[in-house]
Amino acid sequence: MIDCGEGTQLRLGKYKVKINRIDHIFLSHLHGDHYFGLIGLMSTMHLFGRTKPLYIYGPTPIKEIIDLQLKHSQTELNFDVHYFFTDQTESEIIFENRDLIVKKFPLNHRIFCTGFRFEEKPKNPKINKEKIPQDFSLSNIHKLKKGEDIYDEAGNLLFRNEELTLPPKRSRSYAYCSDTKYDESILAYISKVDLLYHEATFANDMKERAESTFHSTAEQAARMALKAKAEKLLLGHYSVRYRELDIILEEARHIFSESFLAMEGNIFEIEE
Amino acid sequence: MIDCGEGTQLRLGKYKVKINRIDHIFLSHLHGDHYFGLIGLMSTMHLFGRTKPLYIYGPTPIKEIIDLQLKHSQTELNFDVHYFFTDQTESEIIFENRDLIVKKFPLNHRIFCTGFRFEEKPKNPKINKEKIPQDFSLSNIHKLKKGEDIYDEAGNLLFRNEELTLPPKRSRSYAYCSDTKYDESILAYISKVDLLYHEATFANDMKERAESTFHSTAEQAARMALKAKAEKLLLGHYSVRYRELDIILEEARHIFSESFLAMEGNIFEIEE
Repeated sequence: MIDCGEGTQLRLGKYKVKINRIDHIFLSHLHGDHYFGLIGLMSTMHLFGRTKPLYIYGPTPIKEIIDLQLKHSQTELNFDVHYFFTDQTESEIIFENRDLIVKKFPLNHRIFCTGFRFEEKPKNPKINKEKIPQDFSLSNIHKLKKGEDIYDEAGNLLFRNEELTLPPKRSRSYAYCSDTKYDESILAYISKVDLLYHEATFANDMKERAESTFHSTAEQAARMALKAKAEKLLLGHYSVRYRELDIILEEARHIFSESFLAMEGNIFEIEE
Repeated sequence: MIDCGEGTQLRLGKYKVKINRIDHIFLSHLHGDHYFGLIGLMSTMHLFGRTKPLYIYGPTPIKEIIDLQLKHSQTELNFDVHYFFTDQTESEIIFENRDLIVKKFPLNHRIFCTGFRFEEKPKNPKINKEKIPQDFSLSNIHKLKKGEDIYDEAGNLLFRNEELTLPPKRSRSYAYCSDTKYDESILAYISKVDLLYHEATFANDMKERAESTFHSTAEQAARMALKAKAEKLLLGHYSVRYRELDIILEEARHIFSESFLAMEGNIFEIEE
């Protein structure tokens, strides 16, 4: 999960997301709309009997804030919480497993704030069942899946990998730029993502206010997507002054046609 | 406002309660379901430009918790926050104005927890317009409203107060007992209230669990209402295990017929 504003646990319930499926929470920064829901979510995990560890990635003070509230409610969580602090300004890998790498990178906001890039690792080739000989061994199947060629015991090439496999699925990528002013120094970190979330707090009518509050306009978000060669752009974090969001979408699409409005409950799928 | 769980500001919006009308917030204790919404509500008050002071009544650590979160979001509130700490165990007046007195009193829960009693002060008599002489002065009207008799300049009684007035409206009272086990030592503080809110986390099937978690059963809440000679009892804080609340209401009414279930959005009026 990325960021966790007040009422997140209510929304998870509404959209039938199982709370206990969440193991990693990435917090961009410590403005309340991005983390006030964390302590409540953690308390509910505890009440629901969670025992598996939870991993939280965010600025250092988050631990003090959570611990203080747990202390004064005399709550000893049933599960371990592992923190990974994001305060170093350089970009770095903060999570990695078999399938996925997550990097954080600096944003340019009023307070310390990081973006996140989620990138699938290169995937294995798919076995082409029609081409596999009937007596083919399981260990050879595993070799094919790892992208290896097949040799006989004497070391002679029997099959090149691509003879028996289909190309792997694409590796997808997603970058999340919460709360930031327009800053091209971020481009390197979000280059060529399939989906870019970039805040678009204001339309062009409030460009000066965007500048002074370290936020972006829709047009600036679109310009970032264009320059980063992103496939699609997700806009969000709209100022409450925009009751209709047409202007936000319009101004973004004028620069980058594959722009979309993030709205509560929407699902955007990235094809493999 | 009494207590302020996560999502309170969302609910205030849903029920069209103006956030800026709230000046005093009474917190019973520091379990999250009673205060996690406070920091978000205060942040929204700030964003909405509030300048008038806010008064918070609760356990001492609430200030540290709020201040820590404001500090790390680098938020300097536009309004003053005045804290009144409730940590002394004895009952005392914590708020008083022209119309109202609020007293806190100790509850019996796992962590430090207080109840609150809201009591209207005796009201002024109402002027009986039909009986007032035509040339009656404004200063004499004020005297009547204060309950005084009317004399002429020589000091002779002209009218006894009750000749020209109608009896004042009733002074209403409400007591709020969040999270507590059954404890008759509380009775003195909730005596003869018009409306008693008393938690009823469990039905009788979970009586032992109520005891061990310092909560009450519906029957125990009803027994408190009966012994305190309350007019009406409001039940609440139901365990999520009760999908149907009939059993809670039934067990309470068996002891105290004027028992009612508090449900989200309900309004209970106390007649004057």
